[in-house]
Amino acid sequence: MAKQNVINAQVSPKGSLEVLSHREVQQLSEAGSGSIYQLFRQCALAILNTGAHVDNAKTILDAYKDFEVRIHQQDRGVRLELLNAPADAFVDGEMIASTREMLFSALRDIIYTENELGDLQFDLASSSGITDYVFHLLRNARTLRAGLEPKMVVCWGGHSINTEEYKYTKKVGHALGLRKLDICTGCGPGVMKGPMKGATIAHAKQRMNGGRYLGLTEPGIIAAEAPNPIVNELVILPDIEKRLEAFVRVGHGIIIFPGGAGTAEEFLYLLGILMHPENRELPFPVILTGPRSAAAYLEQLDAFVGATLGEAARGYYRIIIADPDEVARQMAEGLLAVKRFRRERNDAFHFNWLLKIEDSFQHPFDPTHANMAKLALRKSSPPHQLAANLRRAFSGIVAGNVKDKGIRLIERHGPYEIHGDREIMQPLDQLLQAFVEQHRMKLPGGAAYVPCYRVVS
Amino acid sequence: MAKQNVINAQVSPKGSLEVLSHREVQQLSEAGSGSIYQLFRQCALAILNTGAHVDNAKTILDAYKDFEVRIHQQDRGVRLELLNAPADAFVDGEMIASTREMLFSALRDIIYTENELGDLQFDLASSSGITDYVFHLLRNARTLRAGLEPKMVVCWGGHSINTEEYKYTKKVGHALGLRKLDICTGCGPGVMKGPMKGATIAHAKQRMNGGRYLGLTEPGIIAAEAPNPIVNELVILPDIEKRLEAFVRVGHGIIIFPGGAGTAEEFLYLLGILMHPENRELPFPVILTGPRSAAAYLEQLDAFVGATLGEAARGYYRIIIADPDEVARQMAEGLLAVKRFRRERNDAFHFNWLLKIEDSFQHPFDPTHANMAKLALRKSSPPHQLAANLRRAFSGIVAGNVKDKGIRLIERHGPYEIHGDREIMQPLDQLLQAFVEQHRMKLPGGAAYVPCYRVVS
Amino acid sequence: MAKQNVINAQVSPKGSLEVLSHREVQQLSEAGSGSIYQLFRQCALAILNTGAHVDNAKTILDAYKDFEVRIHQQDRGVRLELLNAPADAFVDGEMIASTREMLFSALRDIIYTENELGDLQFDLASSSGITDYVFHLLRNARTLRAGLEPKMVVCWGGHSINTEEYKYTKKVGHALGLRKLDICTGCGPGVMKGPMKGATIAHAKQRMNGGRYLGLTEPGIIAAEAPNPIVNELVILPDIEKRLEAFVRVGHGIIIFPGGAGTAEEFLYLLGILMHPENRELPFPVILTGPRSAAAYLEQLDAFVGATLGEAARGYYRIIIADPDEVARQMAEGLLAVKRFRRERNDAFHFNWLLKIEDSFQHPFDPTHANMAKLALRKSSPPHQLAANLRRAFSGIVAGNVKDKGIRLIERHGPYEIHGDREIMQPLDQLLQAFVEQHRMKLPGGAAYVPCYRVVS
Amino acid sequence: MAKQNVINAQVSPKGSLEVLSHREVQQLSEAGSGSIYQLFRQCALAILNTGAHVDNAKTILDAYKDFEVRIHQQDRGVRLELLNAPADAFVDGEMIASTREMLFSALRDIIYTENELGDLQFDLASSSGITDYVFHLLRNARTLRAGLEPKMVVCWGGHSINTEEYKYTKKVGHALGLRKLDICTGCGPGVMKGPMKGATIAHAKQRMNGGRYLGLTEPGIIAAEAPNPIVNELVILPDIEKRLEAFVRVGHGIIIFPGGAGTAEEFLYLLGILMHPENRELPFPVILTGPRSAAAYLEQLDAFVGATLGEAARGYYRIIIADPDEVARQMAEGLLAVKRFRRERNDAFHFNWLLKIEDSFQHPFDPTHANMAKLALRKSSPPHQLAANLRRAFSGIVAGNVKDKGIRLIERHGPYEIHGDREIMQPLDQLLQAFVEQHRMKLPGGAAYVPCYRVVS
Repeated sequence: MAKQNVINAQVSPKGSLEVLSHREVQQLSEAGSGSIYQLFRQCALAILNTGAHVDNAKTILDAYKDFEVRIHQQDRGVRLELLNAPADAFVDGEMIASTREMLFSALRDIIYTENELGDLQFDLASSSGITDYVFHLLRNARTLRAGLEPKMVVCWGGHSINTEEYKYTKKVGHALGLRKLDICTGCGPGVMKGPMKGATIAHAKQRMNGGRYLGLTEPGIIAAEAPNPIVNELVILPDIEKRLEAFVRVGHGIIIFPGGAGTAEEFLYLLGILMHPENRELPFPVILTGPRSAAAYLEQLDAFVGATLGEAARGYYRIIIADPDEVARQMAEGLLAVKRFRRERNDAFHFNWLLKIEDSFQHPFDPTHANMAKLALRKSSPPHQLAANLRRAFSGIVAGNVKDKGIRLIERHGPYEIHGDREIMQPLDQLLQAFVEQHRMKLPGGAAYVPCYRVVS
Repeated sequence: MAKQNVINAQVSPKGSLEVLSHREVQQLSEAGSGSIYQLFRQCALAILNTGAHVDNAKTILDAYKDFEVRIHQQDRGVRLELLNAPADAFVDGEMIASTREMLFSALRDIIYTENELGDLQFDLASSSGITDYVFHLLRNARTLRAGLEPKMVVCWGGHSINTEEYKYTKKVGHALGLRKLDICTGCGPGVMKGPMKGATIAHAKQRMNGGRYLGLTEPGIIAAEAPNPIVNELVILPDIEKRLEAFVRVGHGIIIFPGGAGTAEEFLYLLGILMHPENRELPFPVILTGPRSAAAYLEQLDAFVGATLGEAARGYYRIIIADPDEVARQMAEGLLAVKRFRRERNDAFHFNWLLKIEDSFQHPFDPTHANMAKLALRKSSPPHQLAANLRRAFSGIVAGNVKDKGIRLIERHGPYEIHGDREIMQPLDQLLQAFVEQHRMKLPGGAAYVPCYRVVS
Repeated sequence: MAKQNVINAQVSPKGSLEVLSHREVQQLSEAGSGSIYQLFRQCALAILNTGAHVDNAKTILDAYKDFEVRIHQQDRGVRLELLNAPADAFVDGEMIASTREMLFSALRDIIYTENELGDLQFDLASSSGITDYVFHLLRNARTLRAGLEPKMVVCWGGHSINTEEYKYTKKVGHALGLRKLDICTGCGPGVMKGPMKGATIAHAKQRMNGGRYLGLTEPGIIAAEAPNPIVNELVILPDIEKRLEAFVRVGHGIIIFPGGAGTAEEFLYLLGILMHPENRELPFPVILTGPRSAAAYLEQLDAFVGATLGEAARGYYRIIIADPDEVARQMAEGLLAVKRFRRERNDAFHFNWLLKIEDSFQHPFDPTHANMAKLALRKSSPPHQLAANLRRAFSGIVAGNVKDKGIRLIERHGPYEIHGDREIMQPLDQLLQAFVEQHRMKLPGGAAYVPCYRVVS
Repeated sequence: MAKQNVINAQVSPKGSLEVLSHREVQQLSEAGSGSIYQLFRQCALAILNTGAHVDNAKTILDAYKDFEVRIHQQDRGVRLELLNAPADAFVDGEMIASTREMLFSALRDIIYTENELGDLQFDLASSSGITDYVFHLLRNARTLRAGLEPKMVVCWGGHSINTEEYKYTKKVGHALGLRKLDICTGCGPGVMKGPMKGATIAHAKQRMNGGRYLGLTEPGIIAAEAPNPIVNELVILPDIEKRLEAFVRVGHGIIIFPGGAGTAEEFLYLLGILMHPENRELPFPVILTGPRSAAAYLEQLDAFVGATLGEAARGYYRIIIADPDEVARQMAEGLLAVKRFRRERNDAFHFNWLLKIEDSFQHPFDPTHANMAKLALRKSSPPHQLAANLRRAFSGIVAGNVKDKGIRLIERHGPYEIHGDREIMQPLDQLLQAFVEQHRMKLPGGAAYVPCYRVVS
């Protein structure tokens, strides 16, 4: 990456004025605590890169090695001083308002995480403690708003989809927006951006000033998937598990667009939770959709679910091809059921307390050979446990194929051994193969797809 | 046009609640006064057709012959009852908010025009009386807002441009919106829509809730160029001259995108006014712009101005090719000059009182053979008078080529005789020829272009 | 009155920015039209005197002979320049916001009256024309707001009541405010101020930001009864008849506190309208109230109504002594009936179209000997006509006793001859006598009360 | 106290919607944790008693023994269920909005205190830890608003002053409000209410919607000094020391009205802090004021300060008698100095970080005989230390005279022995004597004033 245009600037929060204590300002200063400063600097750089079209974290960090951010206490609140910041975040020398807001959101969440996470108050070993922590972080970010109807629609899918698929996500966003629904995504480009853009135009047509475009991210991914500037609420969760939990507790329904291995893994995470017996009666609209050209992809995903988790699993979602209005109509109807249910059970509209998430979904899965060997992918398991394990297997296989650490493990110890039924492993194989063919999963060096596991029955 | 989906509905104004007197309600009822009712019905139908992609007034009127609108006095204000209304104006049975707003804007302006136009208060024979009338109509529509900085950018250009040009207008709108500028157009599709759409996204990024998308239209054109749903302020002026005056008194700068004969005529109208000696010191930023592919078009227009009105005329505008950011930057700078000038002269930011508009620009030009013969297109005339006459000649030639009435006049009486210098008429000829070649002016039956005039020196 | 503290200042409207045309600015300038300028100067002076405790129009005008107001067109709207203005309208050199608002309200109404009153649009000879005019003036002042529930309570009564009565009006205002009701008065001191003050505190307790304190006044009285600074909507009607019509069409209920002859006359005006047969089914809550010490006064008024207009007349109001909460509760209940009625009849909440006002109430009564002689106060008349005549007789008698012009007429021609029944004239006599004894009607020079009329049976 | 009118009701927060976690709801339920529930019940009862004129905590608690409050999680947020609540908090069955708001403020602060106070995050043993805690509690209550100018004026003084003094506080509040200043008090009746009431009227005149009436209280005093309903921001600090620190860190200037021993103690607390050498350059406007009739009282207080802390101490405040406008003008000027200073030093407008408060002022003083004997009231001490000790002596003497625990200590062990110079003790004696004579300090049983201490030189 060539030498970048940079700019020095001072920014103060407008609108969302942040008030910090002396100690918090101190923590964030470079001298205060190296780690917090580094974390904030990295998130800030990602946010400032919003306007640009680079999408590799390392590239960005390298391109702006001289970037520095300093925090100052001032009469009217805090002020950030930016040195050698990406010029694209500014218009005629003034920072774009959404970027400024996101900088202060990052500040807020990083301070909160730092000060509260080690806190006596939260028992992060227990499932309810983790949920409580997610709740508090979201509340501190003012994401939980009592009094609002259920209308937050989560959109999942790939961040590097093709133009036709991208346009389709805009149309779906537009159809959702016309129905006054809000959008929540992982806050990067692609599927993370299209629905928000469509909804923005639709909300303008509906004269809705308070439309919400909620982006949930994490420090590890924000640089690679810089929040798009439509996002008007940004929350940085400390890790992927808490971020996923935030999605399913804050969202009232989920739309899954085409995507790669990550999207499929999220889909299995969701099915694993929804199929838990305690969640049986809990309504949670899930729609898989894409343009005509993505029909084959969606059908294969559907077939995979049917083949592995059983026909019942297919009842947890609908597939709608090339019909944005129908997607929005079905979602709106599904949300009415969510509303009725929460009202009857006295559950909050703003946080899905009643959703049971087993702690196996709240802790990260480390795909070592030992952990992979412990998985048992049997048709005879209860479907929600199978889904959980399948998600883990999937996670491991993806790692073994494309992630640094996974590839090195495979090189050293040979393929993973997975104890599983052939009726399960074979569809998985086919699905991954298809991802590669459709350029949805990039193998290192463009190599041919070779399974990194073998089945032990 | 096939049988349309229709819907019956009741709508009340929200937000912009309109309060009518008994007499006004009576006037608008079908029984009250046929002509006002018909006018309102026609505008309402055009507005309700916003969502659809038809663009011929007659087609729409024919397609919804059974459409009726009734007005009722209610406890909380007036209510409209719509029968057999186009279904596209509704989402799941509820009218889109912007459409609802525009319906009530039409109501407001038609009632105002009806009650005040015949009024003693306005002397519509005098130039200042017409200006006063335009002022009052705009004020009644709450378009004139004291206290706002000069930032209303008028965008002129064709309503049926190609995709590349349309995308370019969105980009320019986005660049203007990032600079927190507002957009005013003729409120139909094409150039009337693109800049508003781009600005909407940019205003969302800048967290501007009050972005203005002002549409100025007239009853005669609203059906053919239905207001796009981004428009959040709609004003219906009674005729084209008052509408043009509204553009130049309310707008603080003008961007001209590629368009057909109408656009060129507007450009000449603007030059004719700006070149008036009394307007010499008055800053008024004008930018001609388009994508790379439109460069030839813009250069030809520029050459035509140079050849006919002289080099000095070319100093009233800039041409910027394929650089949306530069367009926006130049416009923003130009607006600063406008602001300084109005402040020094104590002229209102919200209405350009100091702009001199001769009454020749305030009254319609009727292109009869007699009127055409009276024009004298001489290089020796003062440039602003030549511009005025050129605009009239242009108007007549366009009529003679493509308008029903003009074509019939030519058939009956032969070509117009225009007294003009050859150095003026020849470039005009070439310009019109180019419009035809670029499909910017459609000749009846696709005929070859034949001049409908001859020069008498 | 001693030499006053004066100040020179410039004020621009904030919040309610007024936008004027060149012609309007011209009309208001001293050079433009002497009469409008004088009218505005006089109203402006009264408004600026809001803070002071003078209550004689002439005194004020004399005390600020050098006061001048100039109007300037500026970049951001109009600006007023004040010379030798009363210093009390300013706090540390800055004009109090409510005063500034009222200045611009006066500007608005005077311009409207000037430009529209002579208008073809309004037929001021007809009853419906006058009503239409009142509607338009109120609408132009943005007083008519569609969508609001009926909750505007008019408070009538004396402007120079005693401390106990004043405190009582504050308590009633507080009780009304706690029920989220709005207040409308004649906008001066005494009963015109107390209820607004009480309601302000109560609205603050109820966290209502939009509480309305509507003051209706007229140029002839504004100087003597300067609007109190709580008023947040000021409307200047051109004369007393239009002002009274505005009260009964905009107010949803009326509370009558103790007052002098003027208050009694208003009460008769109201009864005359409510007793009209066409208004028989129309709900209109009217409550007479005061502290314990005012009980005798209210009872005498009540007895007078019973004796003259008959027992039925007493059914149009209630009397509540020393119970602010009960007053507010009864009023709130009465307003519910108003709401139901308007909903059923499709009448607007914001303007009482269905109230029949005969044109005898819309034109002023001139108390000459001839006009007084034409009155026939007969028990045998229909009660609403008797009420109308009684109001006129009352008006004449008050004039004959205390008004300059009336006193001189009596001196020249002897007492009025009134053709009336003794059962009517005697209670009238007693009522007037009581007003004098209670210091509610000041006779010139403190003279003993001598009837200025004689009854001819 | 007789049997009270009670009411059962359900209330939800409006506007300030509170979002609680499952754990927080659980803590507050009666079953959850007795102590939190009791604390909240007691505060809620005090708040509900706002409207009534009782002012003894015990009386209230006894009068509403059956009062219960239950908290429920609901779809739109939490809901409170009240059983046997004081009827005066309701208007026609609906809770007054300010009362509802305060209930939820109490909820918020009690939950925060409970969860965070025992927290690792705060080192309550250190001075900076206590300050940090106060900051966090205020921030959580949204009291610290970046971006606002310094304009929070603290008003201290007695809660049971006479009518003349009460009216005077209203006038001062009005004069402050006209200058757009905000009011902060201890949130009960008397001086805690008058300035807020006056400011409410003045803010209405200035069309200020966002006027702040901040009440700082503590659980131990809220029942005796129920927040007046004008308070629109209520914060409950856990104890008197944190409450006093909140006053001086959030307030930008302080006005001291007549009051009893408590007021004098607060005055000494303030002087002790302001006289600290590190605060020498820090501007902090302090004004003592009262009506003409309170002049003697204020002069005596002034004389006492001069006699004990030296002439220099008198430089830290001004005395203004019977001139509300002058008080407001001086305060407004003082605030400008505060603004300049904070800007120069980069201190926050919303929190007075630079004010040095020694930890002796942050911990309670327990007036045992041993602690009293340790005090050394010497003219030779540095004035700020003498002020600190004097405040402690004062606190002990007041306790020995009027507080249960103090009186019993004196009965058991005889008078306190205070080591002090006679030039200090004698004025103290006289001041206390005067308080008794002016009915500002009530002795048990109306006994004559007998010093409860003796001086040991």
